[in-house]
Amino acid sequence: MGVTANQRPLIPVPFTAVKLTDVFWAQRQAVNRERTLPIEYRHCQETGRIDAFKLAWEPGQEPEPHIFWDSDVAKWIEAGCYSLSTHPDTQLRARLEEVIALIIAAQGPDGYLNVHFTVVEPEKRWANLRDQHELYCAGHLIEAAVAHFQTTGERHFLDCLCRYADYIATVFGVAPGQKHGYCGHEEIELALVKLYHATGEARYLRLSQYFVDERGQQPCYFDEEARARGEKPEAYWARTYEYCQAHAPVREQTQITGHAVRAMYLYSAMADLAGELHDDGLRTACERIWDDLCGTKMYVTGGIGPSRHNEGFTVPYDLPNDTAYAETCAAIGLVFWGHRLLQWDCDARYADVMERALYNGVISGVALDGETFFYENPLASRGMHHRQPWFGCACCPTNLVRLLASLGQYFYSQRDDELAVHLYAAGAMQTTLTDGAPLTVTQQTRYPWDGEVTLTLGLDAPTALTLRLRIPGWCRQYTLCSNGAPLAHSVERGYACVTRTWQPGESITLQLAMPIERIAAHPHVVADQGRVALQRGPLVYCLEDADHSVPVHLLALDEDAALSTRFVPDLLDGVVVIEGEATAPDVTAWAGQLFRIQQADNTTRVPLRAIPYYAWDNRMAGEMAVWLPKG
Amino acid sequence: MGVTANQRPLIPVPFTAVKLTDVFWAQRQAVNRERTLPIEYRHCQETGRIDAFKLAWEPGQEPEPHIFWDSDVAKWIEAGCYSLSTHPDTQLRARLEEVIALIIAAQGPDGYLNVHFTVVEPEKRWANLRDQHELYCAGHLIEAAVAHFQTTGERHFLDCLCRYADYIATVFGVAPGQKHGYCGHEEIELALVKLYHATGEARYLRLSQYFVDERGQQPCYFDEEARARGEKPEAYWARTYEYCQAHAPVREQTQITGHAVRAMYLYSAMADLAGELHDDGLRTACERIWDDLCGTKMYVTGGIGPSRHNEGFTVPYDLPNDTAYAETCAAIGLVFWGHRLLQWDCDARYADVMERALYNGVISGVALDGETFFYENPLASRGMHHRQPWFGCACCPTNLVRLLASLGQYFYSQRDDELAVHLYAAGAMQTTLTDGAPLTVTQQTRYPWDGEVTLTLGLDAPTALTLRLRIPGWCRQYTLCSNGAPLAHSVERGYACVTRTWQPGESITLQLAMPIERIAAHPHVVADQGRVALQRGPLVYCLEDADHSVPVHLLALDEDAALSTRFVPDLLDGVVVIEGEATAPDVTAWAGQLFRIQQADNTTRVPLRAIPYYAWDNRMAGEMAVWLPKG
Repeated sequence: MGVTANQRPLIPVPFTAVKLTDVFWAQRQAVNRERTLPIEYRHCQETGRIDAFKLAWEPGQEPEPHIFWDSDVAKWIEAGCYSLSTHPDTQLRARLEEVIALIIAAQGPDGYLNVHFTVVEPEKRWANLRDQHELYCAGHLIEAAVAHFQTTGERHFLDCLCRYADYIATVFGVAPGQKHGYCGHEEIELALVKLYHATGEARYLRLSQYFVDERGQQPCYFDEEARARGEKPEAYWARTYEYCQAHAPVREQTQITGHAVRAMYLYSAMADLAGELHDDGLRTACERIWDDLCGTKMYVTGGIGPSRHNEGFTVPYDLPNDTAYAETCAAIGLVFWGHRLLQWDCDARYADVMERALYNGVISGVALDGETFFYENPLASRGMHHRQPWFGCACCPTNLVRLLASLGQYFYSQRDDELAVHLYAAGAMQTTLTDGAPLTVTQQTRYPWDGEVTLTLGLDAPTALTLRLRIPGWCRQYTLCSNGAPLAHSVERGYACVTRTWQPGESITLQLAMPIERIAAHPHVVADQGRVALQRGPLVYCLEDADHSVPVHLLALDEDAALSTRFVPDLLDGVVVIEGEATAPDVTAWAGQLFRIQQADNTTRVPLRAIPYYAWDNRMAGEMAVWLPKG
Repeated sequence: MGVTANQRPLIPVPFTAVKLTDVFWAQRQAVNRERTLPIEYRHCQETGRIDAFKLAWEPGQEPEPHIFWDSDVAKWIEAGCYSLSTHPDTQLRARLEEVIALIIAAQGPDGYLNVHFTVVEPEKRWANLRDQHELYCAGHLIEAAVAHFQTTGERHFLDCLCRYADYIATVFGVAPGQKHGYCGHEEIELALVKLYHATGEARYLRLSQYFVDERGQQPCYFDEEARARGEKPEAYWARTYEYCQAHAPVREQTQITGHAVRAMYLYSAMADLAGELHDDGLRTACERIWDDLCGTKMYVTGGIGPSRHNEGFTVPYDLPNDTAYAETCAAIGLVFWGHRLLQWDCDARYADVMERALYNGVISGVALDGETFFYENPLASRGMHHRQPWFGCACCPTNLVRLLASLGQYFYSQRDDELAVHLYAAGAMQTTLTDGAPLTVTQQTRYPWDGEVTLTLGLDAPTALTLRLRIPGWCRQYTLCSNGAPLAHSVERGYACVTRTWQPGESITLQLAMPIERIAAHPHVVADQGRVALQRGPLVYCLEDADHSVPVHLLALDEDAALSTRFVPDLLDGVVVIEGEATAPDVTAWAGQLFRIQQADNTTRVPLRAIPYYAWDNRMAGEMAVWLPKG
């Protein structure tokens, strides 16, 4: 394709330069900022997570600071800083500085910074990397500090975390006397790449590289530290190091395995390092594992990790709907990873998955009012699965809030005078070209409710540049026009590419046909055999009891059922619904029988209304289904 | 129907009077006796279960006698005694007496008899009835002792268990100072009814009645004993007393809930007591709960309890196939319960379920060679589920061996000069009529491979009696003939009834049409939507990879596909297979896609061969499916 592994990656246009004013995300971001962010602060405060940094806990006190509390506070800080970047807020700023001051004060003289292992089990510092999340918490604190530095330009929090990272670098590594360890829950690897970018200090990149390369090497560090604790390595509760992607050196891994969030964070770091270091081994491992994931182990919603047992992956095509775990954090991690892979060659297959996850399995994780959350995102429900205000393990709410606060970064990438548009939403982006001249791009669109997108280029003067506009994988037909006439373009890896000299204020219009599509799953997906899902544009739809006169699980969709769309402004903050007719069997004829000799059921026709999957469970409790039996 | 709740129940003809010489069960019983019984002894011995009765365990020794080890040995003894009854064997007899002597010697001076709570945690005797299986183990020891007494006529083991039961009666009850307790795992209730029958001592029936009636009363005993242990009752690991059917007084229970084996043992005892005591409250509770179970929560195989989580029941129509728990013991318990309910009014709906479980979900639990066992009996497998030689929790193998050794008892029941034939298999039964005259019934049939059954009555003289012959629920068409001419009969609750004077040596022939049937599940069973199962006679069929050129999960059955049967003598110890054509999609056309816009798959026709479900996983490892998608 004319792209080499050694080509410099694209660079995402930061969210601070992308303003979304659209019909879809703008409101979600406002709710995220105005409701979710303060609510999560309150939860962190009320549950003792923030005060824990005062290190005042004493044995016997309840609650005991948990091993991953630090990460919840860190992710809230990260989200708060992102929010400040786009929406200055003195009260929020003061609140952030207050918490950050507590964290900085909690740092030990050697740089160590972890509440649980400072006050609860100080003797167990670094004693169980496999299970205890110490480096994971460090990673989230680093991400928070980087966000704070980027937002405020102040270094006190960043310096604190540099001290911690520098201390970590003395403990872990290949030098004599160092531990050959790495974290059972990946996270610090990608955080250290961010720290490298923020500080320019290559040692953080090298430390990330060390953690990634050491992973899965023999003899296994987790075995050794288990023996050092007097435990039998084979008594590992998760039974296999596939759980934490430490069953083999990362370059030799071929399939997605284990805990889904762990996997996403590791492979995100690998994608970063592959780009930074032009490392073909990491790159091909990423590509191989991505293909395994997206070709055999991903839900149509972009949810990943079907099993509650390991919060992760099982075998190919094992995608049960009602028991789908599909942790919100895992879908978010998939966005992180896909976004990083996308920067290599601007290949739309990564953007397609990123978009699929964002519009479906990620934002299903938060209620429309921003106040309750899903940890698990099943694709069918008998009516018992509902969002909760908070969780003992609160990773998902804090992941959602930081993602939505920084959503703009997923829309555009740039490499010199080449601009790629990955996602569509009304709003504006500004950047500078290689000669320092400003470029703005304004999108006018009602996407995702409508497929017409007009992009207007703001330039000081006629300028030669390459535009890459993603043609979504879900789109079977599109037109690209300038001044009403077709615009000549090539298509490279799913992007319409136009290289030419553009006039200031010039507009182009991309028209993406957005019919209702009936989606089938691969025949190996037993759970979806004989079933279809409805999709329109990037949105996967579902049926809810709230819209139907019979329980949703009884509704079947005939091959020839006419379906139409309608925007309903007062429904679920405004959604396009899909309407038509379903059939439902007459169950009264079964008269108490559970099994009978096969005969055609009498069926009745009932009105069907599908809503976007992300918006389910925002009304009355009831059944939900994404995959409908064919009538 | 002319039957009142106060009518005396039928009495099963004991297995000692029923000899099976048929094409189906005779070999299973031979394998059970010759292979399974000695193998289970060896496992009990090698794992320390038998030697544990020597009470020589000391702290720190491995293995530590487990709380339900006693029950495994007891069930093996029970099976051994049944085997001795029909097949005298001096070596087995000696082995049994040796183990029984150990058990008797392990009894405490007060009558207490439990290895774990004698040597491991003596201070915790009766401290946790909810979780610790003490009375459950007592129940199995009682069943063993009753079997031993019935087989040998010797009282030493029975007397030992009477002492234990008498001691238990001093501990539990409503008198001042007694514990108002009952066992978290039911079993002793039904065992005490057996002890009552063996000894004629009504106090054992009353103790059973006490345990049944106390269950679920408020204040809940399990709450009280938890508090006495210093635990919070609400910290109960199973979260709800539905787990052990103690959420409500048994007479008020309306739905089948919780742990499936626990439920079956409780309701078996309730059925016993309802019959013994003419207790309408227990009877109607049984009927209500049975209807809930068989109408909404039973697999087509007679497997019950879909969830691994609680080894039991969930919500109506939740019958996933690949994750079906369907514990072997639970299907056996369903046979116990159905058999007891059947004795009330000779209602075939109970016999139908009993037969369904026996021919499918029960005997699937043991390999054809009698040496490995399923704990779980899923209705679909991706090829990873295989029988094991033994389990840490070995309830299923020992339940199977005692069931098969006493199988004959499920075939006939008698009440005065009325004989009911519930199941069909070649062999002979002998009993005596009210006047003391002998009656034999000989069955000639190739059932379940063929539906023709000829019954010959052995009588000393012309005799008036009522024959009730079950017309199986799976049978849509039958004829009943005598000397080639239709025999006049009424049909009562699924039984063809003929009351007349029979001649010595008279034969009648029941011809049950046994076509291949395509079975559908109720539309509420989401897992089976768009699918059919194949059944012929009492046997549910399945597909296995071993017989197919493409993975079984891809095979679909067209509505009009011709199917035929063939007896294959050298396959799986001789089975009737169902043969025809299936269709399979061309998956190569998917080229790595996991989802795509719906379009008809290209399909190919492939030969299909279905085998009886019970016989799966006796060849190469591979996929299995009971429910096939409709093509």
